[in-house]
Amino acid sequence: MIVAESAAEVRAQIRAWKQAGLSVGLVPTMGYLHEGHASLVEKSRSLCDRTVVSVFVNPTQFGPGEDLESYPRDFAHDCALLEERGCDMVFHPDASALYPPDFATYVEICSDMPKQLCGKTRPTHFRGVCTVVTKLFNIVTPNMAFFGQKDAQQLAIIRRMVRDLSMNVEIVACPIVREADGLARSSRNSYLNAQERAAATVLSRSVAVGRDMAARGERDARALVAAMKTVIETEPLARIDYVDAVDGVTMQPVDVVRDGVLVAMAVHIGKTRLIDNFIVGEGV
Amino acid sequence: MIVAESAAEVRAQIRAWKQAGLSVGLVPTMGYLHEGHASLVEKSRSLCDRTVVSVFVNPTQFGPGEDLESYPRDFAHDCALLEERGCDMVFHPDASALYPPDFATYVEICSDMPKQLCGKTRPTHFRGVCTVVTKLFNIVTPNMAFFGQKDAQQLAIIRRMVRDLSMNVEIVACPIVREADGLARSSRNSYLNAQERAAATVLSRSVAVGRDMAARGERDARALVAAMKTVIETEPLARIDYVDAVDGVTMQPVDVVRDGVLVAMAVHIGKTRLIDNFIVGEGV
Repeated sequence: MIVAESAAEVRAQIRAWKQAGLSVGLVPTMGYLHEGHASLVEKSRSLCDRTVVSVFVNPTQFGPGEDLESYPRDFAHDCALLEERGCDMVFHPDASALYPPDFATYVEICSDMPKQLCGKTRPTHFRGVCTVVTKLFNIVTPNMAFFGQKDAQQLAIIRRMVRDLSMNVEIVACPIVREADGLARSSRNSYLNAQERAAATVLSRSVAVGRDMAARGERDARALVAAMKTVIETEPLARIDYVDAVDGVTMQPVDVVRDGVLVAMAVHIGKTRLIDNFIVGEGV
Repeated sequence: MIVAESAAEVRAQIRAWKQAGLSVGLVPTMGYLHEGHASLVEKSRSLCDRTVVSVFVNPTQFGPGEDLESYPRDFAHDCALLEERGCDMVFHPDASALYPPDFATYVEICSDMPKQLCGKTRPTHFRGVCTVVTKLFNIVTPNMAFFGQKDAQQLAIIRRMVRDLSMNVEIVACPIVREADGLARSSRNSYLNAQERAAATVLSRSVAVGRDMAARGERDARALVAAMKTVIETEPLARIDYVDAVDGVTMQPVDVVRDGVLVAMAVHIGKTRLIDNFIVGEGV
Protein backbone atom coordinates (compact mmCIF):
# COMPACT_ATOMS: atom_id res chain seq x y z
CA MET A 1 0.00 0.00 0.00
CA ILE A 2 1.35 3.39 -1.01
CA VAL A 3 1.25 6.17 1.61
CA ALA A 4 1.35 9.56 -0.16
CA GLU A 5 1.74 12.82 1.72
CA SER A 6 1.75 15.16 -1.28
CA ALA A 7 -0.65 15.85 -4.13
CA ALA A 8 2.24 15.46 -6.57
CA GLU A 9 2.89 11.86 -5.40
CA VAL A 10 -0.79 11.04 -5.76
CA ARG A 11 -0.97 12.58 -9.23
CA ALA A 12 2.07 10.66 -10.46
CA GLN A 13 0.64 7.33 -9.28
CA ILE A 14 -2.83 8.08 -10.67
CA ARG A 15 -1.29 8.98 -14.01
CA ALA A 16 0.50 5.63 -14.11
CA TRP A 17 -2.66 3.74 -13.23
CA LYS A 18 -4.76 5.60 -15.79
CA GLN A 19 -2.14 5.05 -18.48
CA ALA A 20 -2.40 1.34 -17.70
CA GLY A 21 -6.17 1.62 -18.26
CA LEU A 22 -7.07 1.11 -14.59
CA SER A 23 -10.10 2.76 -12.99
CA VAL A 24 -9.73 4.56 -9.66
CA GLY A 25 -12.12 4.73 -6.71
CA LEU A 26 -11.78 7.37 -3.99
CA VAL A 27 -12.97 7.04 -0.40
CA PRO A 28 -12.64 10.44 1.32
CA THR A 29 -12.36 10.10 5.11
CA MET A 30 -11.27 12.05 8.17
CA GLY A 31 -9.51 8.93 9.51
CA TYR A 32 -10.01 7.07 12.81
CA LEU A 33 -11.43 4.42 10.55
CA HIS A 34 -14.12 1.93 11.49
CA GLU A 35 -16.25 -0.72 9.79
CA GLY A 36 -18.30 1.98 8.08
CA HIS A 37 -15.20 3.21 6.26
CA ALA A 38 -14.14 -0.38 5.62
CA SER A 39 -17.43 -1.01 3.83
CA LEU A 40 -16.70 1.95 1.53
CA VAL A 41 -13.26 0.51 0.74
CA GLU A 42 -14.82 -2.85 0.04
CA LYS A 43 -17.40 -1.29 -2.28
CA SER A 44 -14.70 0.64 -4.12
CA ARG A 45 -12.60 -2.50 -4.55
CA SER A 46 -15.60 -4.29 -6.02
CA LEU A 47 -16.20 -1.57 -8.64
CA CYS A 48 -12.75 -0.05 -9.37
CA ASP A 49 -9.32 -1.42 -10.24
CA ARG A 50 -7.54 0.74 -7.70
CA THR A 51 -8.78 2.28 -4.44
CA VAL A 52 -7.44 5.49 -2.91
CA VAL A 53 -8.44 6.49 0.64
CA SER A 54 -7.81 10.03 1.80
CA VAL A 55 -7.26 10.51 5.53
CA PHE A 56 -7.56 14.19 6.33
CA VAL A 57 -9.25 16.01 9.19
CA ASN A 58 -10.49 18.91 7.12
CA PRO A 59 -10.39 22.17 9.11
CA THR A 60 -12.75 24.09 6.81
CA GLN A 61 -15.72 21.88 7.67
CA PHE A 62 -15.45 22.57 11.41
CA GLY A 63 -17.08 25.67 12.85
CA PRO A 64 -15.86 27.78 15.76
CA GLY A 65 -16.18 25.83 19.02
CA GLU A 66 -16.53 22.49 17.23
CA ASP A 67 -14.24 19.50 17.76
CA LEU A 68 -11.47 20.12 15.20
CA GLU A 69 -8.67 19.87 17.77
CA SER A 70 -10.11 16.93 19.69
CA TYR A 71 -11.28 14.96 16.63
CA PRO A 72 -9.83 11.46 17.13
CA ARG A 73 -6.73 10.57 15.10
CA ASP A 74 -4.77 7.31 14.82
CA PHE A 75 -3.01 7.16 11.48
CA ALA A 76 -1.02 4.01 12.30
CA HIS A 77 -4.24 2.15 13.06
CA ASP A 78 -5.87 3.57 9.93
CA CYS A 79 -2.97 2.34 7.79
CA ALA A 80 -3.14 -1.13 9.32
CA LEU A 81 -6.88 -1.34 8.65
CA LEU A 82 -6.51 -0.06 5.09
CA GLU A 83 -3.63 -2.38 4.28
CA GLU A 84 -5.67 -5.31 5.57
CA ARG A 85 -8.68 -4.28 3.50
CA GLY A 86 -6.73 -4.01 0.27
CA CYS A 87 -6.55 -0.24 -0.16
CA ASP A 88 -3.97 0.64 -2.83
CA MET A 89 -3.01 4.15 -1.78
CA VAL A 90 -3.58 6.35 1.27
CA PHE A 91 -3.44 10.11 0.76
CA HIS A 92 -2.55 11.76 4.05
CA PRO A 93 -1.81 15.42 3.37
CA ASP A 94 -0.82 18.09 5.83
CA ALA A 95 -3.45 20.79 6.36
CA SER A 96 -0.93 23.51 5.46
CA ALA A 97 -0.33 21.85 2.09
CA LEU A 98 -4.01 21.80 1.17
CA TYR A 99 -4.71 25.22 2.70
CA PRO A 100 -1.99 27.82 2.19
CA PRO A 101 -2.20 30.82 4.57
CA ASP A 102 -4.01 33.02 2.03
CA PHE A 103 -6.41 30.28 0.93
CA ALA A 104 -9.75 31.86 0.03
CA THR A 105 -11.60 29.88 -2.67
CA TYR A 106 -14.68 27.92 -1.64
CA VAL A 107 -17.25 25.76 -3.35
CA GLU A 108 -20.69 26.40 -1.98
CA ILE A 109 -24.27 25.46 -2.73
CA CYS A 110 -26.07 28.79 -2.59
CA SER A 111 -29.58 27.49 -1.96
CA ASP A 112 -31.13 26.53 1.34
CA MET A 113 -30.18 22.87 0.78
CA PRO A 114 -27.10 23.21 3.02
CA LYS A 115 -29.09 25.23 5.56
CA GLN A 116 -31.47 22.38 6.42
CA LEU A 117 -30.78 19.61 8.96
CA CYS A 118 -27.15 19.81 10.11
CA GLY A 119 -26.77 23.16 8.36
CA LYS A 120 -29.09 24.77 10.91
CA THR A 121 -26.40 24.58 13.59
CA ARG A 122 -23.36 24.14 11.30
CA PRO A 123 -23.75 27.01 8.79
CA THR A 124 -20.29 26.71 7.17
CA HIS A 125 -19.94 22.93 7.42
CA PHE A 126 -21.04 21.95 3.92
CA ARG A 127 -19.05 24.73 2.28
CA GLY A 128 -15.98 23.15 3.87
CA VAL A 129 -17.05 19.68 2.76
CA CYS A 130 -17.69 20.76 -0.84
CA THR A 131 -14.39 22.61 -0.96
CA VAL A 132 -12.23 19.76 0.31
CA VAL A 133 -14.04 17.15 -1.78
CA THR A 134 -13.50 19.33 -4.86
CA LYS A 135 -9.81 19.50 -4.04
CA LEU A 136 -9.60 15.74 -3.49
CA PHE A 137 -11.42 15.09 -6.76
CA ASN A 138 -9.01 17.43 -8.56
CA ILE A 139 -5.99 15.65 -7.08
CA VAL A 140 -7.18 12.04 -7.38
CA THR A 141 -9.45 12.39 -10.48
CA PRO A 142 -11.40 9.28 -9.43
CA ASN A 143 -13.83 7.47 -11.72
CA MET A 144 -16.01 6.82 -8.68
CA ALA A 145 -16.18 8.20 -5.16
CA PHE A 146 -17.77 6.47 -2.19
CA PHE A 147 -19.74 8.13 0.60
CA GLY A 148 -21.68 6.72 3.53
CA GLN A 149 -25.45 7.09 3.72
CA LYS A 150 -24.99 7.96 7.39
CA ASP A 151 -24.00 11.48 6.30
CA ALA A 152 -27.14 11.71 4.18
CA GLN A 153 -27.16 15.47 3.74
CA GLN A 154 -23.47 15.46 2.81
CA LEU A 155 -24.19 12.79 0.21
CA ALA A 156 -27.08 14.77 -1.31
CA ILE A 157 -24.97 17.92 -1.37
CA ILE A 158 -22.01 16.17 -3.01
CA ARG A 159 -24.33 14.75 -5.67
CA ARG A 160 -25.71 18.22 -6.35
CA MET A 161 -22.23 19.76 -6.48
CA VAL A 162 -21.01 17.09 -8.90
CA ARG A 163 -23.96 17.73 -11.19
CA ASP A 164 -23.79 21.53 -10.98
CA LEU A 165 -20.03 21.77 -11.53
CA SER A 166 -19.96 19.13 -14.31
CA MET A 167 -17.57 16.92 -12.35
CA ASN A 168 -16.85 13.68 -14.15
CA VAL A 169 -17.14 11.29 -11.21
CA GLU A 170 -19.79 8.78 -10.23
CA ILE A 171 -20.96 9.12 -6.63
CA VAL A 172 -21.72 5.80 -4.96
CA ALA A 173 -23.68 5.71 -1.68
CA CYS A 174 -23.07 2.94 0.83
CA PRO A 175 -25.49 1.85 3.61
CA ILE A 176 -25.07 2.79 7.24
CA VAL A 177 -22.96 0.25 9.15
CA ARG A 178 -24.16 -0.32 12.71
CA GLU A 179 -22.84 -1.83 15.92
CA ALA A 180 -24.60 -5.00 17.19
CA ASP A 181 -26.93 -2.88 19.32
CA GLY A 182 -27.86 -0.59 16.41
CA LEU A 183 -25.61 2.43 17.01
CA ALA A 184 -24.43 3.83 13.68
CA ARG A 185 -20.64 3.55 13.36
CA SER A 186 -18.93 6.90 13.75
CA SER A 187 -15.46 8.07 14.68
CA ARG A 188 -17.16 10.33 17.20
CA ASN A 189 -18.53 7.30 19.10
CA SER A 190 -15.06 7.22 20.69
CA TYR A 191 -16.05 10.35 22.65
CA LEU A 192 -18.74 8.43 24.58
CA ASN A 193 -18.18 7.11 28.10
CA ALA A 194 -19.88 3.83 29.08
CA GLN A 195 -23.07 5.47 30.28
CA GLU A 196 -23.30 7.67 27.18
CA ARG A 197 -22.52 4.71 24.94
CA ALA A 198 -25.57 2.92 26.36
CA ALA A 199 -27.71 6.04 25.99
CA ALA A 200 -26.58 6.54 22.37
CA THR A 201 -28.63 3.60 21.19
CA VAL A 202 -31.62 5.92 21.51
CA LEU A 203 -30.83 7.27 18.02
CA SER A 204 -31.12 3.92 16.25
CA ARG A 205 -34.11 2.96 18.42
CA SER A 206 -35.84 6.14 17.29
CA VAL A 207 -34.88 5.41 13.69
CA ALA A 208 -36.34 1.91 14.02
CA VAL A 209 -39.61 3.33 15.36
CA GLY A 210 -39.82 5.82 12.50
CA ARG A 211 -39.02 3.21 9.87
CA ASP A 212 -41.66 0.83 11.26
CA MET A 213 -44.30 3.57 11.31
CA ALA A 214 -43.53 4.50 7.71
CA ALA A 215 -43.58 0.84 6.68
CA ARG A 216 -46.96 0.42 8.34
CA GLY A 217 -48.32 3.31 6.28
CA GLU A 218 -47.90 6.45 8.39
CA ARG A 219 -47.98 9.33 5.91
CA ASP A 220 -48.04 12.30 8.28
CA ALA A 221 -44.46 13.56 8.63
CA ARG A 222 -45.32 15.55 11.73
CA ALA A 223 -46.75 12.50 13.52
CA LEU A 224 -43.79 10.36 12.48
CA VAL A 225 -41.24 12.88 13.69
CA ALA A 226 -43.17 13.44 16.93
CA ALA A 227 -43.14 9.71 17.69
CA MET A 228 -39.42 9.53 16.98
CA LYS A 229 -38.74 12.51 19.23
CA THR A 230 -40.75 10.88 22.01
CA VAL A 231 -38.39 7.90 21.90
CA ILE A 232 -35.36 10.17 22.21
CA GLU A 233 -36.92 12.14 25.05
CA THR A 234 -37.07 8.98 27.18
CA GLU A 235 -33.29 9.15 27.42
CA PRO A 236 -32.11 11.70 30.03
CA LEU A 237 -28.61 12.03 28.51
CA ALA A 238 -30.02 12.86 25.07
CA ARG A 239 -30.71 16.36 23.78
CA ILE A 240 -32.32 16.69 20.37
CA ASP A 241 -30.69 19.00 17.81
CA TYR A 242 -33.23 18.09 15.12
CA VAL A 243 -35.42 15.30 13.83
CA ASP A 244 -36.73 16.19 10.37
CA ALA A 245 -38.42 14.60 7.38
CA VAL A 246 -37.13 16.09 4.11
CA ASP A 247 -37.09 15.39 0.40
CA GLY A 248 -34.21 12.97 -0.21
CA VAL A 249 -32.76 15.02 -3.06
CA THR A 250 -33.49 18.66 -2.26
CA MET A 251 -33.45 18.42 1.57
CA GLN A 252 -36.65 20.50 1.68
CA PRO A 253 -39.02 19.72 4.58
CA VAL A 254 -41.98 17.55 3.59
CA ASP A 255 -45.42 17.11 5.12
CA VAL A 256 -46.13 13.73 3.57
CA VAL A 257 -44.02 10.61 4.13
CA ARG A 258 -43.40 8.98 0.76
CA ASP A 259 -40.74 6.60 -0.55
CA GLY A 260 -37.47 8.46 -0.92
CA VAL A 261 -38.13 10.84 1.97
CA LEU A 262 -35.10 11.21 4.24
CA VAL A 263 -35.84 11.16 7.96
CA ALA A 264 -32.72 12.42 9.70
CA MET A 265 -31.68 13.39 13.19
CA ALA A 266 -28.87 14.91 15.18
CA VAL A 267 -28.83 14.28 18.91
CA HIS A 268 -26.39 15.33 21.59
CA ILE A 269 -25.44 12.55 24.00
CA GLY A 270 -23.63 14.48 26.70
CA LYS A 271 -21.19 16.65 24.76
CA THR A 272 -21.12 14.35 21.74
CA ARG A 273 -23.26 15.17 18.73
CA LEU A 274 -24.37 12.07 16.82
CA ILE A 275 -26.43 11.65 13.65
CA ASP A 276 -28.57 8.88 12.20
CA ASN A 277 -31.23 8.57 9.51
CA PHE A 278 -33.28 6.33 7.27
CA ILE A 279 -34.80 6.66 3.83
CA VAL A 280 -38.45 5.72 3.57
CA GLY A 281 -38.92 2.64 1.41
CA GLU A 282 -35.31 1.51 1.62
CA GLY A 283 -34.17 -1.56 3.56
CA VAL A 284 -32.42 -1.42 6.93
CA MET B 1 -12.83 20.94 -36.78
CA ILE B 2 -15.26 19.24 -34.43
CA VAL B 3 -18.24 21.29 -33.23
CA ALA B 4 -19.56 19.78 -29.97
CA GLU B 5 -22.77 20.94 -28.33
CA SER B 6 -22.74 18.55 -25.37
CA ALA B 7 -20.32 17.84 -22.56
CA ALA B 8 -20.57 14.13 -23.37
CA GLU B 9 -19.29 14.71 -26.93
CA VAL B 10 -16.40 16.76 -25.60
CA ARG B 11 -15.52 14.15 -22.99
CA ALA B 12 -15.51 11.32 -25.52
CA GLN B 13 -13.15 13.20 -27.84
CA ILE B 14 -10.87 14.30 -25.01
CA ARG B 15 -10.66 10.72 -23.78
CA ALA B 16 -9.58 9.56 -27.24
CA TRP B 17 -6.95 12.30 -27.47
CA LYS B 18 -5.58 11.59 -24.00
CA GLN B 19 -5.46 7.86 -24.70
CA ALA B 20 -3.37 8.72 -27.76
CA GLY B 21 -1.02 10.64 -25.46
CA LEU B 22 -2.00 14.07 -26.81
CA SER B 23 -2.04 17.19 -24.63
CA VAL B 24 -5.05 19.50 -24.68
CA GLY B 25 -5.22 23.29 -24.50
CA LEU B 26 -8.44 25.14 -23.66
CA VAL B 27 -9.32 28.67 -24.70
CA PRO B 28 -12.52 29.72 -22.87
CA THR B 29 -14.37 32.51 -24.74
CA MET B 30 -17.77 34.15 -24.93
CA GLY B 31 -17.54 34.15 -28.74
CA TYR B 32 -17.73 37.05 -31.20
CA LEU B 33 -14.10 36.25 -31.68
CA HIS B 34 -11.40 38.72 -32.65
CA GLU B 35 -7.63 38.80 -33.01
CA GLY B 36 -7.23 38.71 -29.23
CA HIS B 37 -8.93 35.32 -29.11
CA ALA B 38 -6.99 34.23 -32.20
CA SER B 39 -3.74 34.94 -30.37
CA LEU B 40 -4.88 32.63 -27.55
CA VAL B 41 -5.63 29.88 -30.06
CA GLU B 42 -2.23 30.39 -31.64
CA LYS B 43 -0.51 30.18 -28.25
CA SER B 44 -2.41 27.02 -27.38
CA ARG B 45 -1.48 25.43 -30.71
CA SER B 46 2.18 26.22 -30.06
CA LEU B 47 2.14 24.50 -26.63
CA CYS B 48 -0.49 21.74 -26.89
CA ASP B 49 -1.25 18.92 -29.34
CA ARG B 50 -4.94 19.73 -29.50
CA THR B 51 -6.81 23.00 -28.93
CA VAL B 52 -10.39 23.28 -27.71
CA VAL B 53 -12.19 26.63 -27.77
CA SER B 54 -15.39 27.07 -25.78
CA VAL B 55 -17.87 29.62 -27.12
CA PHE B 56 -20.41 30.35 -24.41
CA VAL B 57 -21.98 33.59 -23.25
CA ASN B 58 -22.02 32.70 -19.57
CA PRO B 59 -25.12 34.11 -17.86
CA THR B 60 -23.78 33.78 -14.29
CA GLN B 61 -21.05 36.36 -14.88
CA PHE B 62 -23.52 39.08 -15.89
CA GLY B 63 -25.23 41.14 -13.23
CA PRO B 64 -28.75 42.58 -13.32
CA GLY B 65 -28.96 45.35 -15.93
CA GLU B 66 -25.75 44.28 -17.67
CA ASP B 67 -25.51 43.30 -21.33
CA LEU B 68 -26.26 39.55 -21.24
CA GLU B 69 -29.05 39.78 -23.83
CA SER B 70 -27.31 42.24 -26.13
CA TYR B 71 -23.85 40.67 -25.91
CA PRO B 72 -22.76 40.20 -29.54
CA ARG B 73 -23.03 36.70 -30.98
CA ASP B 74 -22.02 35.31 -34.39
CA PHE B 75 -21.29 31.62 -34.11
CA ALA B 76 -20.91 31.06 -37.86
CA HIS B 77 -18.21 33.70 -38.01
CA ASP B 78 -16.58 32.28 -34.88
CA CYS B 79 -16.44 28.83 -36.46
CA ALA B 80 -14.93 30.19 -39.66
CA LEU B 81 -12.23 32.04 -37.72
CA LEU B 82 -11.47 29.01 -35.53
CA GLU B 83 -11.33 26.61 -38.46
CA GLU B 84 -8.93 28.97 -40.24
CA ARG B 85 -6.74 29.25 -37.12
CA GLY B 86 -6.46 25.50 -36.66
CA CYS B 87 -8.71 24.97 -33.64
CA ASP B 88 -9.45 21.25 -33.24
CA MET B 89 -12.75 21.40 -31.37
CA VAL B 90 -15.32 24.08 -30.54
CA PHE B 91 -17.51 23.50 -27.51
CA HIS B 92 -20.73 25.46 -27.92
CA PRO B 93 -23.13 24.40 -25.19
CA ASP B 94 -26.62 25.63 -24.55
CA ALA B 95 -27.01 27.64 -21.34
CA SER B 96 -29.77 25.30 -20.14
CA ALA B 97 -27.40 22.33 -20.45
CA LEU B 98 -24.72 23.94 -18.29
CA TYR B 99 -27.22 25.50 -15.87
CA PRO B 100 -30.24 23.35 -15.01
CA PRO B 101 -33.16 25.27 -13.48
CA ASP B 102 -32.20 24.39 -9.90
CA PHE B 103 -28.49 25.08 -10.41
CA ALA B 104 -27.04 26.44 -7.17
CA THR B 105 -23.35 25.56 -6.76
CA TYR B 106 -20.81 28.35 -7.12
CA VAL B 107 -17.06 28.68 -6.86
CA GLU B 108 -16.09 31.90 -5.18
CA ILE B 109 -13.00 33.58 -3.85
CA CYS B 110 -14.10 34.76 -0.41
CA SER B 111 -11.50 37.48 0.08
CA ASP B 112 -11.63 41.05 -1.15
CA MET B 113 -9.62 40.10 -4.26
CA PRO B 114 -12.78 39.88 -6.40
CA LYS B 115 -14.14 43.07 -4.80
CA GLN B 116 -11.36 45.30 -6.16
CA LEU B 117 -11.30 46.90 -9.63
CA CYS B 118 -14.17 45.50 -11.73
CA GLY B 119 -15.63 43.83 -8.63
CA LYS B 120 -16.53 47.22 -7.21
CA THR B 121 -19.36 47.62 -9.72
CA ARG B 122 -19.74 43.94 -10.69
CA PRO B 123 -20.05 42.16 -7.32
CA THR B 124 -21.11 38.74 -8.65
CA HIS B 125 -19.07 38.80 -11.86
CA PHE B 126 -16.05 36.79 -10.74
CA ARG B 127 -18.16 34.21 -8.93
CA GLY B 128 -19.78 33.54 -12.31
CA VAL B 129 -16.41 33.43 -14.05
CA CYS B 130 -14.90 31.02 -11.50
CA THR B 131 -17.97 28.80 -11.67
CA VAL B 132 -18.10 28.49 -15.44
CA VAL B 133 -14.34 28.06 -15.77
CA THR B 134 -14.49 25.28 -13.16
CA LYS B 135 -17.21 23.60 -15.20
CA LEU B 136 -15.24 23.97 -18.44
CA PHE B 137 -12.11 22.59 -16.76
CA ASN B 138 -14.12 19.62 -15.46
CA ILE B 139 -15.54 18.92 -18.92
CA VAL B 140 -12.41 19.50 -21.03
CA THR B 141 -9.72 18.53 -18.44
CA PRO B 142 -7.14 20.62 -20.29
CA ASN B 143 -3.41 20.43 -19.60
CA MET B 144 -3.21 24.17 -20.18
CA ALA B 145 -5.76 26.97 -20.36
CA PHE B 146 -5.20 30.32 -22.06
CA PHE B 147 -6.48 33.70 -20.85
CA GLY B 148 -5.93 37.21 -22.11
CA GLN B 149 -4.00 39.74 -20.04
CA LYS B 150 -6.67 42.27 -20.99
CA ASP B 151 -8.91 40.73 -18.33
CA ALA B 152 -6.12 41.06 -15.78
CA GLN B 153 -8.24 40.64 -12.67
CA GLN B 154 -9.96 37.60 -14.15
CA LEU B 155 -6.56 36.10 -14.88
CA ALA B 156 -5.31 36.68 -11.32
CA ILE B 157 -8.53 35.24 -9.90
CA ILE B 158 -8.37 32.15 -12.10
CA ARG B 159 -4.76 31.57 -11.02
CA ARG B 160 -5.79 31.84 -7.36
CA MET B 161 -8.74 29.51 -7.86
CA VAL B 162 -6.58 26.92 -9.61
CA ARG B 163 -4.09 26.99 -6.77
CA ASP B 164 -6.69 26.96 -3.98
CA LEU B 165 -8.80 24.16 -5.46
CA SER B 166 -5.80 22.02 -6.48
CA MET B 167 -6.81 22.09 -10.13
CA ASN B 168 -4.31 20.30 -12.33
CA VAL B 169 -4.10 22.82 -15.17
CA GLU B 170 -1.44 25.30 -16.17
CA ILE B 171 -2.75 28.83 -16.71
CA VAL B 172 -1.05 30.69 -19.55
CA ALA B 173 -1.47 34.46 -19.91
CA CYS B 174 -1.34 36.10 -23.34
CA PRO B 175 -0.62 39.79 -24.04
CA ILE B 176 -3.29 42.32 -24.92
CA VAL B 177 -3.91 42.54 -28.67
CA ARG B 178 -4.63 46.06 -29.90
CA GLU B 179 -6.08 47.74 -32.95
CA ALA B 180 -3.69 49.88 -35.03
CA ASP B 181 -4.71 52.98 -33.03
CA GLY B 182 -4.13 51.27 -29.69
CA LEU B 183 -7.66 50.24 -28.68
CA ALA B 184 -7.57 46.89 -26.91
CA ARG B 185 -9.49 44.27 -28.87
CA SER B 186 -12.81 43.42 -27.26
CA SER B 187 -16.07 41.92 -28.44
CA ARG B 188 -17.75 44.90 -26.80
CA ASN B 189 -15.98 47.31 -29.20
CA SER B 190 -18.79 46.36 -31.59
CA TYR B 191 -21.16 48.42 -29.42
CA LEU B 192 -19.33 51.66 -30.32
CA ASN B 193 -20.59 54.06 -32.97
CA ALA B 194 -18.04 55.95 -35.05
CA GLN B 195 -17.76 58.87 -32.64
CA GLU B 196 -17.44 56.56 -29.63
CA ARG B 197 -14.92 54.38 -31.46
CA ALA B 198 -12.70 57.45 -31.89
CA ALA B 199 -13.18 58.44 -28.25
CA ALA B 200 -12.36 54.92 -27.05
CA THR B 201 -8.67 55.37 -27.87
CA VAL B 202 -8.51 57.44 -24.69
CA LEU B 203 -8.08 54.22 -22.70
CA SER B 204 -4.93 53.10 -24.48
CA ARG B 205 -3.62 56.68 -24.58
CA SER B 206 -4.03 56.83 -20.82
CA VAL B 207 -2.32 53.43 -20.48
CA ALA B 208 0.57 54.70 -22.61
CA VAL B 209 0.95 57.77 -20.39
CA GLY B 210 0.95 55.62 -17.25
CA ARG B 211 3.42 53.14 -18.68
CA ASP B 212 5.79 55.91 -19.74
CA MET B 213 5.62 57.58 -16.33
CA ALA B 214 6.40 54.27 -14.61
CA ALA B 215 9.24 53.57 -17.04
CA ARG B 216 10.67 57.00 -16.32
CA GLY B 217 10.71 56.20 -12.61
CA GLU B 218 7.44 57.52 -11.17
CA ARG B 219 6.92 55.57 -7.94
CA ASP B 220 3.91 57.39 -6.50
CA ALA B 221 0.83 55.38 -7.45
CA ARG B 222 -1.47 58.29 -6.64
CA ALA B 223 0.39 60.63 -9.00
CA LEU B 224 0.50 58.04 -11.74
CA VAL B 225 -3.22 57.30 -11.49
CA ALA B 226 -4.05 61.01 -11.35
CA ALA B 227 -2.11 61.65 -14.55
CA MET B 228 -3.86 58.77 -16.26
CA LYS B 229 -7.26 60.04 -15.14
CA THR B 230 -6.41 63.49 -16.48
CA VAL B 231 -5.91 61.97 -19.93
CA ILE B 232 -9.29 60.25 -19.78
CA GLU B 233 -11.02 63.39 -18.55
CA THR B 234 -10.02 65.21 -21.76
CA GLU B 235 -12.53 63.01 -23.61
CA PRO B 236 -16.12 64.25 -23.21
CA LEU B 237 -17.65 60.86 -24.10
CA ALA B 238 -15.60 59.07 -21.44
CA ARG B 239 -16.75 58.42 -17.88
CA ILE B 240 -14.27 56.79 -15.52
CA ASP B 241 -15.40 53.72 -13.57
CA TYR B 242 -11.98 53.25 -11.97
CA VAL B 243 -8.26 53.68 -12.56
CA ASP B 244 -6.32 51.81 -9.88
CA ALA B 245 -2.83 50.58 -9.14
CA VAL B 246 -2.88 47.21 -7.38
CA ASP B 247 -0.61 44.31 -6.52
CA GLY B 248 -0.49 42.08 -9.60
CA VAL B 249 -1.20 38.89 -7.63
CA THR B 250 -3.47 39.91 -4.75
CA MET B 251 -5.25 42.85 -6.41
CA GLN B 252 -4.72 44.92 -3.25
CA PRO B 253 -4.26 48.67 -3.78
CA VAL B 254 -0.64 49.82 -3.63
CA ASP B 255 0.92 53.17 -2.86
CA VAL B 256 4.23 52.49 -4.54
CA VAL B 257 4.67 51.69 -8.23
CA ARG B 258 6.99 48.69 -8.51
CA ASP B 259 7.56 46.05 -11.19
CA GLY B 260 4.63 43.66 -11.22
CA VAL B 261 2.08 46.28 -10.15
CA LEU B 262 -1.08 46.14 -12.23
CA VAL B 263 -2.49 49.49 -13.32
CA ALA B 264 -6.01 48.84 -14.57
CA MET B 265 -8.98 50.89 -15.67
CA ALA B 266 -12.61 50.60 -16.64
CA VAL B 267 -14.11 53.50 -18.58
CA HIS B 268 -17.58 54.02 -20.01
CA ILE B 269 -17.61 55.34 -23.56
CA GLY B 270 -21.26 56.25 -23.99
CA LYS B 271 -23.09 53.16 -22.77
CA THR B 272 -20.17 50.81 -23.43
CA ARG B 273 -17.90 49.83 -20.57
CA LEU B 274 -14.33 49.11 -21.72
CA ILE B 275 -11.25 47.96 -19.80
CA ASP B 276 -7.52 48.24 -20.34
CA ASN B 277 -4.39 47.84 -18.23
CA PHE B 278 -0.64 47.44 -18.10
CA ILE B 279 1.78 45.71 -15.77
CA VAL B 280 4.68 47.83 -14.59
CA GLY B 281 7.98 46.49 -15.91
CA GLU B 282 6.44 44.40 -18.67
CA GLY B 283 6.70 45.25 -22.38
CA VAL B 284 3.88 46.73 -24.44
